[in-house]
Amino acid sequence: MPDKSTLDVILTPNLLSLYPLEGKVVVVIDVLRATTTMTVALDQGAERVIPVESIEECLSYKDKPNHILAGERGGQKVEGFNYGNSPFEFMDGVVNGKTLVLTTTNGTRAIEMSKGAYKVIVGGFLNFTALTKWITAESRDTLLLCSGWRDKFNLEDTVFAGAVVHHLKEFFHVDSDAAFAAEKLYLNSRRNMMHFMKQSSHYRRLARFGVVNDIKYCLRPDLTTVVPVLKGNALVCANVGRDME
Amino acid sequence: MPDKSTLDVILTPNLLSLYPLEGKVVVVIDVLRATTTMTVALDQGAERVIPVESIEECLSYKDKPNHILAGERGGQKVEGFNYGNSPFEFMDGVVNGKTLVLTTTNGTRAIEMSKGAYKVIVGGFLNFTALTKWITAESRDTLLLCSGWRDKFNLEDTVFAGAVVHHLKEFFHVDSDAAFAAEKLYLNSRRNMMHFMKQSSHYRRLARFGVVNDIKYCLRPDLTTVVPVLKGNALVCANVGRDME
Repeated sequence: MPDKSTLDVILTPNLLSLYPLEGKVVVVIDVLRATTTMTVALDQGAERVIPVESIEECLSYKDKPNHILAGERGGQKVEGFNYGNSPFEFMDGVVNGKTLVLTTTNGTRAIEMSKGAYKVIVGGFLNFTALTKWITAESRDTLLLCSGWRDKFNLEDTVFAGAVVHHLKEFFHVDSDAAFAAEKLYLNSRRNMMHFMKQSSHYRRLARFGVVNDIKYCLRPDLTTVVPVLKGNALVCANVGRDME
Repeated sequence: MPDKSTLDVILTPNLLSLYPLEGKVVVVIDVLRATTTMTVALDQGAERVIPVESIEECLSYKDKPNHILAGERGGQKVEGFNYGNSPFEFMDGVVNGKTLVLTTTNGTRAIEMSKGAYKVIVGGFLNFTALTKWITAESRDTLLLCSGWRDKFNLEDTVFAGAVVHHLKEFFHVDSDAAFAAEKLYLNSRRNMMHFMKQSSHYRRLARFGVVNDIKYCLRPDLTTVVPVLKGNALVCANVGRDME
C-alpha cells in the first residue's frame, strides 16, 4: 500500500475555503436531517435527488413531471411546499421512480459549495457502514464536511464525522486537531447518543417543532446500504460494487 | 440579578464575522503561546504590550526608545528579531518598564480582528482564575475567541475556552454547541492535560522546535493575577480591583 491518503474534518462550511477540494472526496454531513433524508429518498426508490440552494431554484422545477419539491428553512417546512425535510415524508412509495428536488437551511448549501471536489457523497448514521466502506474503497484524500447551523459549528454533524474518523483512522492518515476533537466527541457520545444529542441546539430546535421521532430515526445506524453520490447536479445511488472494483 | 449575559465560544477567527461584537467582551485565546507570553510580559513589569499583525508594522517601532520588538511566524522566531514568542524570553527583567511590540502567527491577528468589541482581554492558564473573575465581574455578553492555527480549529485554545465555560456556566447563559463541545474537550483533558495536548498538531510543531518547556509552562495554572486588557492599540494590566468596583 502506498502512503495513506488523508482524512480530515471541516467543522463548518464557513471553513471550507481553507481546504483545497481538487482531487478529493467530500462527504457532506447534515445528519439532522438533510443528508439523512436524501439517503432515505434514494433508498425508497427515488431516481435522483437534486439538492438546490434556494427556494426559488426549487420552485423552478414545479412544472416538470415526476418531480417532487421539498423545502425547509430554520427547521420547518417552507410555506407553499407539500414536503419539508423529514425522512418520514419520503417513505411509503411517495418518491418511487421520481426526482426529489430539495432545499434546506444547511445541507443543500454545503453540497453546492463542495462541487469542486473529485466526488461528493452524503450520508448519515443510516448508511454509516456502507458510507465508510465506500470511502475506504475509494481511498482518496477525504474531507468530512459538517454542514453546521448557519455556518456555525454544530454538535451532531461533528459527532458523526468523529464516528467516521474513529472507524477509518487505521486506513487513513489523520492528524488534524479537528479530526481528533470530533473523534473525542464521538467517543463521549456513543454510549448514549440520544442523551448526548439532547445537548445540541438543533435537537432543542427540532424538539420545539415536535419532531423528536425524526431525530431518533436520524441516529439509527445502518438502515440502508445506499450511498448517494453527486453526478452532475443530482445525487444518485453509487453502484457500490462497481465503484469498488 | 437580571437575565444572565451570554457566554459563547468562537472556534476560529475565521468564524468571527458570524458573531456581532458590539457591546461585548472578547477574550482572545492563544494559549500556545502568544496570549500567555503577553501576560508574562505584563507580569514581568512591561508597561504595555502592543500586538501588531505584520512584521513590517512591528519593525516600524524599531527606533522608538524603550521598545522591544518580538516576532514569530509558523512557531519560530522571525529572522532579524532579537525575541520570538517564548514566555521565557521575557523574564529576568528584560521587559521591565518597557513596551513590548509583538507579532505572532495567530494571536496578534485575532486581537486585531476583535477591536470592534466593548473590551478585549487576553490570557491563558497562567492567569485563569484572575481572568474568570474579571469576566464574571464585568458580567457582559462574552465571546471566547480561539486564535486557532492559520484560521483552522486548534485543540489547545478550545480546551482553554472549555475550561472557562466550565467554571463560568453557572453565572452566564451558555447554550451553543461550540461551548458545549469545548467544555466536553476540557473535561476530557483535565486529568492529564499535557498528555491530551500531545495530540494537538501545534504541540508536535513546537516539540520539533525543541520548546516543550514552553508548552509545559503555558499549561501551568494561576501563576499571576495580571489580566491584560486592550486600551487603544496596547494591552495593559487591568486594574482588577478598580474594574470590579
